[in-house]
Amino acid sequence: MAILQPIHNIAEIFSKKDVKTVILCPGSRSAALTLSMVRHPDIETFSISDERSAGFIGLGMAQLTNKTVSLICTSGTAVYNFAPAVAESFFQEIPLLILTADRPAEWIHQYDGQTIYQREIFGKHVKKSFELPADYSNEDCIWQIERVINEAINLSQTNPKGPVHINIPIREPFYPNENETITFDSNVRIIENCLMDKKLPNQFWNNFKEIWQDAENKLIIVGNRQSSELNETLAKFSDELNIPIVADIISNVNSVDSILADVILASKNEKFRNKLKPDLLITCGKSIISKNLKLFIRNNKPKYHFHIQENGDLIDPFQTLTHKVEVSPEYFFKQLFEDLDFLKFKEGDEDDENIYFELWNQSNLKVKHILHEFLSNSNFCEFKVVRNVLDKLPENSIFHVANSMVVRYSNLIGLGKGKNIEVFANRGTSGIDGSLSSAVGCAIKTDKAVTCLIGDMSFFYDRNAFWNTYLPDNLRVILLNNNGGNIFRIIDGPNKQPEVGEYFETKQNHSAEFFCQENNVKYLKVKDEVNLELSLNLLQEKSTRPIVIEIELDGLQNVEIFNEYKKLFANFS
Amino acid sequence: MAILQPIHNIAEIFSKKDVKTVILCPGSRSAALTLSMVRHPDIETFSISDERSAGFIGLGMAQLTNKTVSLICTSGTAVYNFAPAVAESFFQEIPLLILTADRPAEWIHQYDGQTIYQREIFGKHVKKSFELPADYSNEDCIWQIERVINEAINLSQTNPKGPVHINIPIREPFYPNENETITFDSNVRIIENCLMDKKLPNQFWNNFKEIWQDAENKLIIVGNRQSSELNETLAKFSDELNIPIVADIISNVNSVDSILADVILASKNEKFRNKLKPDLLITCGKSIISKNLKLFIRNNKPKYHFHIQENGDLIDPFQTLTHKVEVSPEYFFKQLFEDLDFLKFKEGDEDDENIYFELWNQSNLKVKHILHEFLSNSNFCEFKVVRNVLDKLPENSIFHVANSMVVRYSNLIGLGKGKNIEVFANRGTSGIDGSLSSAVGCAIKTDKAVTCLIGDMSFFYDRNAFWNTYLPDNLRVILLNNNGGNIFRIIDGPNKQPEVGEYFETKQNHSAEFFCQENNVKYLKVKDEVNLELSLNLLQEKSTRPIVIEIELDGLQNVEIFNEYKKLFANFS
Repeated sequence: MAILQPIHNIAEIFSKKDVKTVILCPGSRSAALTLSMVRHPDIETFSISDERSAGFIGLGMAQLTNKTVSLICTSGTAVYNFAPAVAESFFQEIPLLILTADRPAEWIHQYDGQTIYQREIFGKHVKKSFELPADYSNEDCIWQIERVINEAINLSQTNPKGPVHINIPIREPFYPNENETITFDSNVRIIENCLMDKKLPNQFWNNFKEIWQDAENKLIIVGNRQSSELNETLAKFSDELNIPIVADIISNVNSVDSILADVILASKNEKFRNKLKPDLLITCGKSIISKNLKLFIRNNKPKYHFHIQENGDLIDPFQTLTHKVEVSPEYFFKQLFEDLDFLKFKEGDEDDENIYFELWNQSNLKVKHILHEFLSNSNFCEFKVVRNVLDKLPENSIFHVANSMVVRYSNLIGLGKGKNIEVFANRGTSGIDGSLSSAVGCAIKTDKAVTCLIGDMSFFYDRNAFWNTYLPDNLRVILLNNNGGNIFRIIDGPNKQPEVGEYFETKQNHSAEFFCQENNVKYLKVKDEVNLELSLNLLQEKSTRPIVIEIELDGLQNVEIFNEYKKLFANFS
Repeated sequence: MAILQPIHNIAEIFSKKDVKTVILCPGSRSAALTLSMVRHPDIETFSISDERSAGFIGLGMAQLTNKTVSLICTSGTAVYNFAPAVAESFFQEIPLLILTADRPAEWIHQYDGQTIYQREIFGKHVKKSFELPADYSNEDCIWQIERVINEAINLSQTNPKGPVHINIPIREPFYPNENETITFDSNVRIIENCLMDKKLPNQFWNNFKEIWQDAENKLIIVGNRQSSELNETLAKFSDELNIPIVADIISNVNSVDSILADVILASKNEKFRNKLKPDLLITCGKSIISKNLKLFIRNNKPKYHFHIQENGDLIDPFQTLTHKVEVSPEYFFKQLFEDLDFLKFKEGDEDDENIYFELWNQSNLKVKHILHEFLSNSNFCEFKVVRNVLDKLPENSIFHVANSMVVRYSNLIGLGKGKNIEVFANRGTSGIDGSLSSAVGCAIKTDKAVTCLIGDMSFFYDRNAFWNTYLPDNLRVILLNNNGGNIFRIIDGPNKQPEVGEYFETKQNHSAEFFCQENNVKYLKVKDEVNLELSLNLLQEKSTRPIVIEIELDGLQNVEIFNEYKKLFANFS
């Protein structure tokens, strides 16, 4: 047996347990992992040099496919450069398996290069952290290695999914001899994870249905989640049971016309707001973008708030939670609908008018109309650009939206139902450090058109997203360049400080033009609405290279129009 | 008192305790820190958007000045982007004070944006980690804040210096009102750190001098350290006591002609090597670049090995340590020289011929000659370029050398004594992630010419080093572009694998030309020796902007010549 055979066999376990995408960052300490992954016939590998970007590219792939993607790097600060993506994947519950090569323990902090304290380095931002033995002469060590790889993969895949870390001390020699073949032991151990079917007892349902029937105003809010069979069920709640469904653009509820809650709840009319108060609130999904929605619920506490979430953590962003239900939303809503439907059938199909539902729906139609009129008549500005981009997104495509202002604008506008557009965003920690890389990772793994909407700070922060040889031709980047962090001029506080330009916006004058030339990426600059419309046709068209459409925007103009918008709905009712 | 007064007062403590350089990364959660630092009259602030680069820029400043530099960022993954620089500063013992704004504890993991587990996030890579209270209504909390800031600064400055982390939960409102002035409480508490004078007892010296006199072959090895008054003393050991002093280029021993130990010890002639074996080895400083030197000492264990290091850690990279001496090398060598000098005076000035010293010195002269002849006759390649660059470095200037091959080449060539060139490198963890940023930080803080020698992987990895408005005109970057990580073709192992191009070198075709245009940085491309010589004149000349000299090199040619070099000294004696 080759000395490093147990390390090579990791690739075999990966393959057998369906971990077939691996991001490799160059390094010597990790060579045995690199070579075995590359040489395993079932595994697709990508070589990415900047670990920060590599982490987010892997995250973008796993976000799309919902399958575990493995990140592999050498020892030293390379490991720490994965950390932003690891934290994002932890809070977004994305399955990543991070393998970090390390010096054996006796060489830690002995003035040797590329050596840091890697054991448990990601702290609470991984589901679990393992360390493999550095010697394999003992049979028990091989048992441990095989067992740990199995456990780590299983864990990454178990709800809540998330990142798992394995630190791997490796001794020299790292490389096989010239022409030596690496073989994989097909008898490697595989341990399947058999999970229970999480269902609620009848007792729960009986109680819940009583609460349901007693409640006059029932509201469903869906936070950040990927699309699923849940959408079909939610459509029935809306269409057949007249339950308003409030969701952000990142909630991927594309089976109903999303309610623009953030816009509606911009109203300061207390009488109107009172009427929107729910008695029974049911929530699922993760974070909510809409600050107005969060404040509204916090100030209008429902009698009951059930949150449907398999994750054991108690997360209560509305500060209203009364019941936490640890099952999948798919099961919960499906079962609930079936029960209610049967009840309706038994008790006769009386179509009770639903004032509450109509109020949300009519308000939604009204604000949509007002907002679109407003934007159609406004000057060229970011808000309008985002509206036009969302309008032009191709059917059955993917929308990757970065953080800061672009996701806020997008959420105010929403996506119509029926175009079957999947939306992704790094809302686990909402950083600006990996949005472009995540979009690149996503686009690599799909044939669909991927449109990435991103501001200039996020774009340049993560520009190493383009530093690889895999740039996919289905990627379209819409870069809103207002020369700095415009958000700081829009939110209240920094905009009133003399330091806003230098220390918050960090005013600058970069264009992506040279950068796109360097990377052989097609580039268009747009300065007005006519050219915007023309350029947006490229979202649908085939191309041999990715395309960046850079839109030059005036930060002060954006602020002015956004302030007008804020006044628009202050008295809405 | 303003609610955030205790936070504003941090700037006052900084000023009073001589922490006067602060790197600010934009964000709202950290606004109170940003505004008070900017508005404090004694503090110089820099606004840097990419926290990874910001961390290394701050590190470069502290590395040069030896004074604590503070890094401040907002909450979320911003913090993790500091981590590579934090780890580097920990192992390099550079004083950094990291202030990370955070949400108050009750909002951690509640689906709020930019929120991760920041408490103790840097693990073992900081000397200590603090967390401030989020409420200041209690007097004791203010006492705690002032005390902690004092302790943190003191700690960062106490040997071994290093990074200290303070996590700072801050509640809204983050911003003062429009036109509200921020005041600083001049009565803020200052706690001075009074340190002992670390001296060794007579007993030690008596014993040590006996060992010294009994030992025939005495050798001093200096690892990575910054220049200091130690150099003058070391010159006396060499010139007056005939003790060979072996040092790397990053050891900054520029008072003696450095011995090219890595080249000499490339010799496989056992008889010759045996003669170089020390009986008494004295070491100081941190890591050693020369692998030949490490292996030579490990295989030729001296009877005594004294390591002079204030740091309490037991670090034994030669695997030969017999005594650890916890005082400063400055004190140790000065005292030792004085004692030996007195002894010599007392016992008469008999100039004993020192065969051991002469062997090292003559070997050094010989290898230098051979190496220079070899390079002068070789084709245009990296090794030769590095030699020419080192030759042309201006007197009294700073040489910032990146990791991977460039620092290895530089160490094989060495710097002559007398030109008073300070050398910096990130050899704490030897990563490629922040060398360019560190050079930028260094150049900002000095009027001297700063030459940064860097390979293409390190350059592009850390390209956001240029994403700020402070690029100093005294910076010259010599970019050795061999289109990938050429080191993997040079070291044994990866060069024998078919994957070397794609997965180790990560072969690519980037040039810095467009990037320099984007950043308004002067740019020259060099492809041959004649133009190299012409361009190197720019190292001395004034310029209004930084200059990048990109040298196009052929990776295969580099390998060929390096392999020839390796044969050159195999039989040296």
